[in-house]
Amino acid sequence: MKIGIIGLGLIGGSLGLDLRNCGHIIYGVSRQEKTCQRALERGIVDYASINIDSLATVDIVFVCTPIGLISPTIQKLTPHLKSETIITDVGSVKSSVVNECEVLWTNFVGGHPMAGTAEQGVEAAQKNLFKNAPYVITVTEKTTKNSIKILEELAQSLGCVVHTCSPEIHDQAVAWISHLPVMISASLIAACVGEKEKTVLELAQQLASSGFRDTSRVGGGNPELGVMMAQYNKTALLQALDSYRHQLDQIREYIYEERWDSLEEILIKTQKKRSPFIKTQHNS
Amino acid sequence: MKIGIIGLGLIGGSLGLDLRNCGHIIYGVSRQEKTCQRALERGIVDYASINIDSLATVDIVFVCTPIGLISPTIQKLTPHLKSETIITDVGSVKSSVVNECEVLWTNFVGGHPMAGTAEQGVEAAQKNLFKNAPYVITVTEKTTKNSIKILEELAQSLGCVVHTCSPEIHDQAVAWISHLPVMISASLIAACVGEKEKTVLELAQQLASSGFRDTSRVGGGNPELGVMMAQYNKTALLQALDSYRHQLDQIREYIYEERWDSLEEILIKTQKKRSPFIKTQHNS
Repeated sequence: MKIGIIGLGLIGGSLGLDLRNCGHIIYGVSRQEKTCQRALERGIVDYASINIDSLATVDIVFVCTPIGLISPTIQKLTPHLKSETIITDVGSVKSSVVNECEVLWTNFVGGHPMAGTAEQGVEAAQKNLFKNAPYVITVTEKTTKNSIKILEELAQSLGCVVHTCSPEIHDQAVAWISHLPVMISASLIAACVGEKEKTVLELAQQLASSGFRDTSRVGGGNPELGVMMAQYNKTALLQALDSYRHQLDQIREYIYEERWDSLEEILIKTQKKRSPFIKTQHNS
Repeated sequence: MKIGIIGLGLIGGSLGLDLRNCGHIIYGVSRQEKTCQRALERGIVDYASINIDSLATVDIVFVCTPIGLISPTIQKLTPHLKSETIITDVGSVKSSVVNECEVLWTNFVGGHPMAGTAEQGVEAAQKNLFKNAPYVITVTEKTTKNSIKILEELAQSLGCVVHTCSPEIHDQAVAWISHLPVMISASLIAACVGEKEKTVLELAQQLASSGFRDTSRVGGGNPELGVMMAQYNKTALLQALDSYRHQLDQIREYIYEERWDSLEEILIKTQKKRSPFIKTQHNS
């Protein structure tokens, strides 16, 4: 298959490495000449160009740009494509992207391969990044069966576990398990460094250990990524935040009223209910 | 030095192993005959007894019982001790413990060696558990200089980094970096399993990865321990929870009002301010 990839960073580059390894011919597009050069040198692509019209003959295009550029990129791309070409994206938020893009191209299907590292750029691209990772494919009334089938087969060839659902269900699920944790974790750090006695802050910094380290990890991550989540998944994230605050208030009330049995009941539940979320291990 | 240890579980047992290794004579006390037997077999103690009067001749006693039993244990212990014997505890909350105990015994000094594993009991005791761990020694107007000095030297011989402060400062610091994380992490799990569409819950469980795993870890821990923190450190924990909720509300407001620059400012701050809390690595 001839496969186009626009954006040759961590995700686009890693897709190129694995898909090329499967025997496909990879046409890469980057805005930077030197990224094209590196992608060729690293064996990520067979051909690379800064011109989007170089994708005129491909069968499917993966748009691997930042979320805000997906729809503008597709607008520039479509005049050059044959009508049966499939366009997909790899954005981590789907409703807003899919809504915009499926009116631009009939054979558009939204996707979200849920893998990553803390690194960025073409040098960060790596083989087998997607092995055992979930690959969400979004389905709407407009999505063509053929585009779902082709993307599903490609995702499986990467070693991904494919999930299909509506863009809205995807966005709610990732709000809960990915975007909400960032906000509550960031709030922890912000509260810990907030106004307090200097001796308390300094001692807290000295005494902090694995509990603080783990709970604060995602809140200390890439700020742009955090804003992006909030910006493009606002509705679902706000809903999750409100429900979270309700739970927090419940716990606070039990402590305030010294209802230790009720507090223990919650903590017994949270101990028990955590495991279904952590049985699957993958990079993300 | 002759050292008494009451409670031969993870902390008491590990103290025994290391202090005995330093050349001290260890007198262990447990409520269970079979724990005494195992402590002797494992080389944790030189002598072991279920009778507290076996500690009549020791120079210092480490009370390593659960927090609620520290003061009752000291009440039973004091009639058997010589007046210059030092009593210390290893409780993870200090104000309430120290307030109660320092009126029971002149040479009482509160302590908190901040090390641990997920295991409990005499079989969990291990050598070098305290290496590089913080050891907080609490100082009040009533604390004698000699008892601070002796405990400090013993803590240093375990490889601990000693911090001295008031019980109140200790409790505030651990509320921020240890007890607050448990409550916010438990709230995350509780919110994620709370009322929502079944398809969203199931997909969330499938898609959850390292971000959710880390942020939810301490909230999925030992429920009794969580209740104990809240029970004995209520004031400081409520204060931390209120300040945390204020931060969370701030973030929620920025998202709701689409003030992306303000949100990014917070996330830039939390990314930068996390590192002073995580430079020290130890088991706890």
